[in-house]
Amino acid sequence: MKLASLRGPGRDGTLVVVRRDGLAYAPAGADLPTMQAALDDWDRAEPALRQLAAAIERGDAATTPLVVEELAAPLPRAYEWVDGSAYIHHIVLVRKARGAEPPETLTTDPLVYQGGSGVLLGPTDDIVLADEAWGLDFEAEVCAILGDTPQGARRDEAHRYIRLFLLANDVTLRNLVPAELAKGFGFFGSKPATAFSPFAITPDELGDALRDGRVHLRLRSTYNGALIGDPEAGPEMHFSFFDLIEHIARTRSFTAGTILGSGTVSNQDPARGVSCLAERRMLEILADGAVRTPFMKPGDTIMIEMLNHAGESLFGRIAQRVVAR
Amino acid sequence: MKLASLRGPGRDGTLVVVRRDGLAYAPAGADLPTMQAALDDWDRAEPALRQLAAAIERGDAATTPLVVEELAAPLPRAYEWVDGSAYIHHIVLVRKARGAEPPETLTTDPLVYQGGSGVLLGPTDDIVLADEAWGLDFEAEVCAILGDTPQGARRDEAHRYIRLFLLANDVTLRNLVPAELAKGFGFFGSKPATAFSPFAITPDELGDALRDGRVHLRLRSTYNGALIGDPEAGPEMHFSFFDLIEHIARTRSFTAGTILGSGTVSNQDPARGVSCLAERRMLEILADGAVRTPFMKPGDTIMIEMLNHAGESLFGRIAQRVVAR
Repeated sequence: MKLASLRGPGRDGTLVVVRRDGLAYAPAGADLPTMQAALDDWDRAEPALRQLAAAIERGDAATTPLVVEELAAPLPRAYEWVDGSAYIHHIVLVRKARGAEPPETLTTDPLVYQGGSGVLLGPTDDIVLADEAWGLDFEAEVCAILGDTPQGARRDEAHRYIRLFLLANDVTLRNLVPAELAKGFGFFGSKPATAFSPFAITPDELGDALRDGRVHLRLRSTYNGALIGDPEAGPEMHFSFFDLIEHIARTRSFTAGTILGSGTVSNQDPARGVSCLAERRMLEILADGAVRTPFMKPGDTIMIEMLNHAGESLFGRIAQRVVAR
Repeated sequence: MKLASLRGPGRDGTLVVVRRDGLAYAPAGADLPTMQAALDDWDRAEPALRQLAAAIERGDAATTPLVVEELAAPLPRAYEWVDGSAYIHHIVLVRKARGAEPPETLTTDPLVYQGGSGVLLGPTDDIVLADEAWGLDFEAEVCAILGDTPQGARRDEAHRYIRLFLLANDVTLRNLVPAELAKGFGFFGSKPATAFSPFAITPDELGDALRDGRVHLRLRSTYNGALIGDPEAGPEMHFSFFDLIEHIARTRSFTAGTILGSGTVSNQDPARGVSCLAERRMLEILADGAVRTPFMKPGDTIMIEMLNHAGESLFGRIAQRVVAR
């Protein structure tokens, strides 16, 4: 089942069920007005939404053509956005780029940061940039939306807490990162609003691509019209979503609607390209001793998408443009 | 005007207007079911709530006796919890305690961290502790609840974005902090659910105690029945709430209902005591070379309160007990 949120009338949008081909939708109805309302009451909501989804596929429900620009993020604002950094290759490269060492516990203790979740961007929302000197970058990621997750949740039961998957562009202001992390309290201003894919989908939509808490498909990033990376999201995700859930729940519990990110998808094979400019810039330095790729500037575009083995776009496409403020 | 949230029936509680003496309340009504709903639509909500507050004071509105145990946090879950660390004395002492240096930009660049906001504790909720070795501590703070705050908001207009004030107990697991901060991504597991005061109050309730974006009253913390600190929250708040708003809005905007914390209130004068155990432990080391005060354990209690010059409790009292998980 594919879900999405139309913009308005309220701040949290309107929940809709999307036809599998992504081209039409039907509103979930007044009883389930928003994605958050459905997540808050998932045991009741899920069967009703699946019934509507089946009716849409059969052609038995009235649908409206889907216009992606009319979509907000699946959760236009969320109670929590917890972003992991589960691809070791990304951590090593990006820390090298800013002259920092990877943490000693790189392969044993997952890295996560608490992101801002009160303002999230829809899939086609502009990235508004007030200052080019901040070093704007995209980061393509796979995310899960959790149901209520208790403190102490374990890896082997973690699949029970994943309600939906979606994609993210974890927008980063690279040149603000070093000074901010030097203060010791983590990211804050260097992580402006994150953007999300048009659709959030139930785990069954991934079929056998979902194994061991990892999504075994390629994540395609297209920068200014050219493919810049299509890494495999599965094999090199050192910590799976199950590992990340156990990690974040060690001391805390999480409310339904918490978004959990994989971190920037990254492969060691250079043929797979990159999911952010920071990695490409570091690879340029390692190869040639100099950076050739600048950070993003007004007019640049980024598209992020994941196709299944049949070539279908599972989550729709994040397609954003940078504009000056 | 004093506002609070009764627990239930939904996850976000029920908004009530509280009589100035804190002893009775009236529901805000079906049109303003929750605190978040009022904040989302403040221009319309505020006059209606003030009208009800005036009727309550006159005795013209039906009220119910207030039982503090029936209250959730004013926002039982929030879209963002951004916690500053504006008292320089606290930063210096606590970093010394863990053998870390204060950041070089200590007095020029505010420290803030992004806190988890999906699960917030009510004023009398137990602090559930799974492992005493984690080093449980309280931190008494003053907080503001913001309305919609645009990117680029400036200090001199920041007063416009403050809707309400309240108190917090920013619960911290001290022994998890050093390893977590060493990883470079800030606090995560070392900051479990934060607790908030019974009442969130409009700025006018503070009268002339609110000056220059600071609350000029003492914040009283009572630990296991004995006063452990009553520092002045005003003069040593190096960065005011206005400064903090300008800082956090440099690259990001914030949705209505964002909670912004002052950081642990702390005075240089030792007669004013402490607002957390970490400071007391560091002072013991400096005085005697050894720690005498252990961290919190099951059965311990913490009360946090702020009185105005007339001796009235402005926010009600945070009164929590530690229980083993």
